[in-house]
Amino acid sequence: MANYNVAPLQRLVEQFERLPGIGSKTAQRLAYFVLNMPKEQAAEFSKAITEAHEKIRRCEICCNFSDQEKCPVCRSEARDKSTICVVETPRDAIAIEGTGEYKGTYHVLHGVISPLNGIGPDQLCIKELLARLNDGKAQEVIMATNPTVEGEATAMYLSRLLKPLGLKITRLAYGIPVGGDLEYADDVTLARALEGRSEL
Amino acid sequence: MANYNVAPLQRLVEQFERLPGIGSKTAQRLAYFVLNMPKEQAAEFSKAITEAHEKIRRCEICCNFSDQEKCPVCRSEARDKSTICVVETPRDAIAIEGTGEYKGTYHVLHGVISPLNGIGPDQLCIKELLARLNDGKAQEVIMATNPTVEGEATAMYLSRLLKPLGLKITRLAYGIPVGGDLEYADDVTLARALEGRSEL
Repeated sequence: MANYNVAPLQRLVEQFERLPGIGSKTAQRLAYFVLNMPKEQAAEFSKAITEAHEKIRRCEICCNFSDQEKCPVCRSEARDKSTICVVETPRDAIAIEGTGEYKGTYHVLHGVISPLNGIGPDQLCIKELLARLNDGKAQEVIMATNPTVEGEATAMYLSRLLKPLGLKITRLAYGIPVGGDLEYADDVTLARALEGRSEL
Repeated sequence: MANYNVAPLQRLVEQFERLPGIGSKTAQRLAYFVLNMPKEQAAEFSKAITEAHEKIRRCEICCNFSDQEKCPVCRSEARDKSTICVVETPRDAIAIEGTGEYKGTYHVLHGVISPLNGIGPDQLCIKELLARLNDGKAQEVIMATNPTVEGEATAMYLSRLLKPLGLKITRLAYGIPVGGDLEYADDVTLARALEGRSEL
């Protein structure tokens, strides 16, 4: 079959196809939507992409994304600098921020130790974590990596690394998710929920 | 709660949130993905958006999107100019093109008559359709608008408009989708399938 595609449109579709979770049909739908936008809106979209790349860097303290030297959380006077929550990605920090319950600071590793994917401790923001622990302000480090094999291994690695510093090192609680159903909880989660039971 | 968002990142998330079918979580995921792209890829993405807007216009014959005066289908010598398939959107034309069975040309209305949304025949590419029928090359017009109330109404309106020209006017067949299940087909579809039954 001959190719009757329009090149600039095809390129836009291909750009959307690169995004995670966007298949070819959705990419087409999005490309046509962008094409039907007013010209100014499309220009804004295009600018937002380049600007995000130009202006966003890593916070020099916590390695989270920031448009200044320090990220808004590290800059804030209201945040408790004695508690550091270690997360895998900036989106995990946003998720914790979303609870509105956490008043400490974050440290973003930008990944997990994963030998299968060739990612060792050196590729993560671990030296930055050690550097900020040197000032002695921090008292507690909360390991909030994901409860996956790699996340667990990274938390274990870090806790061994930090133990000599005499800090309190904690881990997020495992258990049944709120609104979940015992019947459908997997064995490991259920075992951890039993293990971590608390007095009423 | 104070706002600890990073402005350029937030703007990118908002741009993705504008797209259809993209909620706030997905928009976040996409924005972070774009941020983690190599700089050249992000620049390409940004350029694809502006270029699509600058370079793409409507084909002067069939009103489909094109980067030249005539779209690839209208330019092609291999396509049968005597058959015109009238569709609502460029994506419908792509869907029909995807079958590989259709060798005629298209005409894209860019919408349907929808009085509730204030869209009358004048806002659609109907005058362009009438203009191209003037040269007498066309012999058949296939109505391939969607089987919705508005699509039907538009097909009816057009067929009445074109009847005096003495053309053959056809409509896509209604019936059970291939691989579908009689039990789950709706009444109207089933009634139309009966009505349109053919001899074996």
